Amino acid sequence: MKSFILSLIFLTLFRFGYSQSELKVNQERLNNSIQKLSTFGKNEAGGSDRVAYSKYDQEARIYIKELMTKAGLAVSTDFAGNLIGKKTGLNPSLKPIAFGSHIDEVPNGGDYDGPVGSLSAIEVVQTLSENNWNTRHPLEVIIFTNEEGGVIGSRALAGQLSPEALKIKSSSGMTQYEGIKAIDGDPDRIPELKRNSGDLAAFLELHIEQGGNLDREGIDIGVVEGIVAIEWYEFTFHGFANHAGTTPMNMRKDPMLPAARLVLAVNEIVNSFDGAQVATVGKIEAFPGAGNVIPGEVKLNVEIRDLSSEKIHNVYEAIEKKAKTLAQESDMEVSINHIEVASKPALANPEIQKTIETSAKALGLSTKYLPSGAGHDSQEIARFAPIGMIFIPSKDGISHSPQEYSSPEDIVNGANVLLQTIIALDRKLNSKN
Amino acid sequence: MKSFILSLIFLTLFRFGYSQSELKVNQERLNNSIQKLSTFGKNEAGGSDRVAYSKYDQEARIYIKELMTKAGLAVSTDFAGNLIGKKTGLNPSLKPIAFGSHIDEVPNGGDYDGPVGSLSAIEVVQTLSENNWNTRHPLEVIIFTNEEGGVIGSRALAGQLSPEALKIKSSSGMTQYEGIKAIDGDPDRIPELKRNSGDLAAFLELHIEQGGNLDREGIDIGVVEGIVAIEWYEFTFHGFANHAGTTPMNMRKDPMLPAARLVLAVNEIVNSFDGAQVATVGKIEAFPGAGNVIPGEVKLNVEIRDLSSEKIHNVYEAIEKKAKTLAQESDMEVSINHIEVASKPALANPEIQKTIETSAKALGLSTKYLPSGAGHDSQEIARFAPIGMIFIPSKDGISHSPQEYSSPEDIVNGANVLLQTIIALDRKLNSKN
Repeated sequence: MKSFILSLIFLTLFRFGYSQSELKVNQERLNNSIQKLSTFGKNEAGGSDRVAYSKYDQEARIYIKELMTKAGLAVSTDFAGNLIGKKTGLNPSLKPIAFGSHIDEVPNGGDYDGPVGSLSAIEVVQTLSENNWNTRHPLEVIIFTNEEGGVIGSRALAGQLSPEALKIKSSSGMTQYEGIKAIDGDPDRIPELKRNSGDLAAFLELHIEQGGNLDREGIDIGVVEGIVAIEWYEFTFHGFANHAGTTPMNMRKDPMLPAARLVLAVNEIVNSFDGAQVATVGKIEAFPGAGNVIPGEVKLNVEIRDLSSEKIHNVYEAIEKKAKTLAQESDMEVSINHIEVASKPALANPEIQKTIETSAKALGLSTKYLPSGAGHDSQEIARFAPIGMIFIPSKDGISHSPQEYSSPEDIVNGANVLLQTIIALDRKLNSKN
Repeated sequence: MKSFILSLIFLTLFRFGYSQSELKVNQERLNNSIQKLSTFGKNEAGGSDRVAYSKYDQEARIYIKELMTKAGLAVSTDFAGNLIGKKTGLNPSLKPIAFGSHIDEVPNGGDYDGPVGSLSAIEVVQTLSENNWNTRHPLEVIIFTNEEGGVIGSRALAGQLSPEALKIKSSSGMTQYEGIKAIDGDPDRIPELKRNSGDLAAFLELHIEQGGNLDREGIDIGVVEGIVAIEWYEFTFHGFANHAGTTPMNMRKDPMLPAARLVLAVNEIVNSFDGAQVATVGKIEAFPGAGNVIPGEVKLNVEIRDLSSEKIHNVYEAIEKKAKTLAQESDMEVSINHIEVASKPALANPEIQKTIETSAKALGLSTKYLPSGAGHDSQEIARFAPIGMIFIPSKDGISHSPQEYSSPEDIVNGANVLLQTIIALDRKLNSKN
């Protein structure tokens, strides 16, 4: 009883004696580990070839496991190849607060998309451990498998990874199935990984913005409102292929013309709505596609992204209406093919958003609420847990490129916000459960 | 002396005793031979696979040689594989009047593009022969090698076929060199074939229009003013490739927009000039060309055709100016690559044009002067001889397709105009030489 009271006093002193904002990650150690990780798969062009399952990825995972172990985490590899690091909490009945990211890159990618969040997560635990800061909740660091090749590890946890999806070839040349085996997973047992609502108290991910908003506006921390939904629509205008030399201008049924008008209309329409929605024509093709043939068909791809599925639908409806008008005016048909990409936005938990903002402000950092236009593992975790994402600036908004860059100062700011958010949530969520 | 005077009387009676317009080709025989030729290489889809050098082409050439011999021509195969049929003239010092076309087709092509002119040429000689109509000029029927795969036979006669060009693969799978050998040519000796200015008194080609002008306007005979020049220009707008999800609309440098505007401008500009000039964007491509990436570059091909190189240049200049303005307005660069296709138009000889018109009118046929937007063997022959082309209607302007069609009536009209034009030229050119 006496020792219990002593520990209580000790804990209280420990946890509330330090003012929360005094606990800081080690900037030098964090940036060293980011630097070290970048050496796995660095190519001659300065890019990273650490695609998931590659020998570079495999070697890097050994390094990451060492760091995790050193930070006081009990490390295991789950059936999907996710690296899971666990730290017990003071109250074993509470559900874990989880956080993490990924370490794989696109081919010839950069050094920050994934590594910043992964190494900051480990650094946060290292900082807590060396300061003997014990959270009430268990902590769980997750380094997800093959984010760039289809958020494979997080989909496994969300029960969204079908055996069919495992047959798809990854950038490594291996199928997902083979790749997961190569990193000590057990792909046949992936269904056992599925987590359910309530299994995690919260999930946090620190990530580079991969956009230019924070960098351009000189803001330290992005509080992510959610990960946008994505819809693809393929429009095909059907004209009449003919000889480009013998068909007079006034006898042509050239689908290139309504297609060009639709490209311009997509831009006008998406800009005519208030908000942060975006629409892109990234692909256009004429068939047969010869310089001396008036095309018979022109196909173009329209991608629309927004946090609101309803907004996407409204933008799409306006584009669809315009496409039909353009086809009619040209006496042509237009066919539309809807390709499902990510139909539902993954909204961040409002209380977590608020906690991220408060934590950043207490550190004297400027903040901005913004959507994530890019996909992340968090979107899959949002299927069963409250999520929050912290963004740091990405120079000129460049990512998936050797030019990708975030400064050591921005990275350490992000890691400290992650640390303080975890501490605050540990306290708050604890009071609730 | 007595016999000379008798022959002169006989000839005069013979040639002027028949009114010129009474001599007619045999419609049934002509259409039967077109029908028969179409069986060589007919595929299940109803198209013709009689590509140059193929076994269908080889078999068809045997049939053509038989017809030529039957018509009274002395047949040989030249070093380029051209079938040459010669008939002596009354005045051996005169240069030959030549006429002909080709019998090869594009893959899955039609039955009229080439065969109409080739079989009509033979039918004309057959008609002259069976009516004992002897021309003063020697006559020469030429069935050209591989028109569809690069006007090979006519280029050989024009001295435009380099050893390099012979290495190019043809639709048959064989190189031009191998193909020419397969049809009994001698590709190494092609340079000896080169003909010079003055070697032919005239060259005539009857052909289907491959456009919809005559068919649409219900006109019997097209008097070809010349074969258009063709220029290709490849425009590339250089923007900045970026993430389609994370790059706000107002932060984009999307080359798809000026490219779309240029597509529309090309159409407006070419229509703003008087005349029959045409311009086509048959090809457009975005790079990298993914639905989720704002393109870094968009490339499009502009083809311009006209009988006047100056007109092409003026149209191009207006397009180039617009492209530069569009690039500037978007704060982008545009690069332009000129691809040489057929820089010089091949103009038809004015006197031959007039003779074609007069011959058609005398037969009670309606005529229209028009350019040929498509390339033909005649364009190569025009390098060394006065040429004329006779067009007949092509249903709906369709060609290079199993749907290609010209009616038996239109074909026989064309053949009779060819016949009467040869007779008239034989008389006229004779008086000049």
